[in-house]
Amino acid sequence: MRTTYNFNPGPAVLPEDVLEQAREELLDYRGSGMSLLESSHRGKEYSAVHEEAIANIRELLGLSDDYAVLFLQGGASLQFAMVPMNLLGANQTADYVVSGSWAAKALKEAKLLGNVNVAADCAREMPTRVPSADELALTNGAAYVHLTSNETIAGAQWKSFPDTAAPLVADMSSDILSRPFDAGRFALIYAGAQKNLGPAGVTLVVIRKDLADRTPERVPTLLRYGTHIERNSLFNTPPCFGIYLVLLVTRWVKKTGLAELHDRNRSKAARIYRVIDRTGFYRGTAVPACRSDMNVTFRLPSEDLEAAFTAEAAAQGLKGLKGHRSVGGIRASIYNAFPVEGVEALVSFMEDFEQRNG
Amino acid sequence: MRTTYNFNPGPAVLPEDVLEQAREELLDYRGSGMSLLESSHRGKEYSAVHEEAIANIRELLGLSDDYAVLFLQGGASLQFAMVPMNLLGANQTADYVVSGSWAAKALKEAKLLGNVNVAADCAREMPTRVPSADELALTNGAAYVHLTSNETIAGAQWKSFPDTAAPLVADMSSDILSRPFDAGRFALIYAGAQKNLGPAGVTLVVIRKDLADRTPERVPTLLRYGTHIERNSLFNTPPCFGIYLVLLVTRWVKKTGLAELHDRNRSKAARIYRVIDRTGFYRGTAVPACRSDMNVTFRLPSEDLEAAFTAEAAAQGLKGLKGHRSVGGIRASIYNAFPVEGVEALVSFMEDFEQRNG
Repeated sequence: MRTTYNFNPGPAVLPEDVLEQAREELLDYRGSGMSLLESSHRGKEYSAVHEEAIANIRELLGLSDDYAVLFLQGGASLQFAMVPMNLLGANQTADYVVSGSWAAKALKEAKLLGNVNVAADCAREMPTRVPSADELALTNGAAYVHLTSNETIAGAQWKSFPDTAAPLVADMSSDILSRPFDAGRFALIYAGAQKNLGPAGVTLVVIRKDLADRTPERVPTLLRYGTHIERNSLFNTPPCFGIYLVLLVTRWVKKTGLAELHDRNRSKAARIYRVIDRTGFYRGTAVPACRSDMNVTFRLPSEDLEAAFTAEAAAQGLKGLKGHRSVGGIRASIYNAFPVEGVEALVSFMEDFEQRNG
Repeated sequence: MRTTYNFNPGPAVLPEDVLEQAREELLDYRGSGMSLLESSHRGKEYSAVHEEAIANIRELLGLSDDYAVLFLQGGASLQFAMVPMNLLGANQTADYVVSGSWAAKALKEAKLLGNVNVAADCAREMPTRVPSADELALTNGAAYVHLTSNETIAGAQWKSFPDTAAPLVADMSSDILSRPFDAGRFALIYAGAQKNLGPAGVTLVVIRKDLADRTPERVPTLLRYGTHIERNSLFNTPPCFGIYLVLLVTRWVKKTGLAELHDRNRSKAARIYRVIDRTGFYRGTAVPACRSDMNVTFRLPSEDLEAAFTAEAAAQGLKGLKGHRSVGGIRASIYNAFPVEGVEALVSFMEDFEQRNG
């Protein structure tokens, strides 16, 4: 049993079983005489890892054959550029829904590369939230509509997704595989692995294959979705060890089940929100209907108390609770692999801290 | 002691001590209570890793303050595009020296993005080689000159680098840190980590900082060298665990010393080339003066014998000897971390195989 609880927003906690298996197999991967860190990406050991990781994502997201599952590099930040480079034609407009810092970063890259319409912008509102579907000012014939399913910094999350005529593109970095949803409604989903999928250095892209036909000719080979679809993410050397960890995490998700994980995630988050709402000492940052199950954000009566809170929590093994440097406050990131015992420990600490300082 | 020898061209063998330390620290990194796979990239544990890895590269390459050391993602293949995106202005020409498949791939991307002059092309010659300095047809006022220091597939390597008036850019993926050289003669060096530096998923870029001023305005944020220089490779989440392994590998290189490693590498390669040259049964693929110390490429009298050679070698634990699928033959990749015992085992096997089949 661990004695430290890792509330970091990403890279974030991984399932203990996953780390133990990785350790077990690190020096000699399944009798191959070598580590998977040094195995050829075209050899049979890694090939089996690659294929099973893809198959697990396909199964967990219920993807039809119209979709490809890609493992790329560069994080969501590179996708902010790749999406418009590939999908936004010269005479087209892309709709961006701006719900916080991450959506704003995606918008910034798209603006560099083409015509953009801001379909809604609540990024600077307090309390934080995501827009409602009927607020969206969408463009007729838009190249695509982009949204951010969970704002890691703001602690706001879409609870249901809007219906859009244009292809729907989503950054799901911080809540992918945390709940069941209809992936068939999306044209493209991307996610940096380091929150719910594995370690930093792998980016999951799920793309409806016909979208790759849109890419203009002068987009570099490695930045074309078509390159990676055609070569099954093996055009160049993939981040093999990271994908191996994604495989182990997806096995763990499959064993638990998405619906069960969703229940656990809601219940973990609700436990903390309950303490937040009890007296007024803690104040939740997000509009209650938009509260994230992944990143619980809240404030204390003063910044001094917030500093004392994170320092005392860390001393008790509750690490990574400081809010993002751009907004301050407290953030408890409790992704899939975050244990319920850690939530109980935080709740006890919050109650105790309030009693002593309230 | 290992019983399998890993001749793979990349991902490739890592020092045994490095793998053992990584295993030792995998579950609880230095008493932090968490794995480095799940630690924040802005926390003190990872920060120390990041800074020491950069410092080690600076020291090993003897870099002045004019240079920045970056850890990026996407491999050399993304650098094929990033170099011209950043350095090749609209009215400029870049010189490309084409010595094999990898240089040709770099050229292909540059052609997509700007004006290119092929300064020399011996990529389709047999025996394989790199051009001599006096063959190069360089452009006056070129934006830069690009070369590939070691052609992994052809088994040909530059033994000394040409003097160029224009900034010199090199893909050193397969021989970085294998020998001392004057890095101050280069404006930009890049290398995928998975041969001499660490695992797949990290790209080393060494750049003279003034070059970043050239980047056109519309290049996306993550594809600008300036972004990563300004933010010390922490603009977005880096591939932390891969960089940690680069740190362990650079410590191992420092302990051994670059000059000593170069001696070892030359002596390992010479041992194999000696067997190749002895009778004519084996035929070296590269012009002797250009023979690579990293990838020893050779042919046997027939493709059937080559197939028998790799199969029998693999059965004896000598793995990964098959030449690249585009050229066939045999390739023994013997990077820094490849042990001399493995070279002795290969030499014995070659002598035995020749005796039985010669």
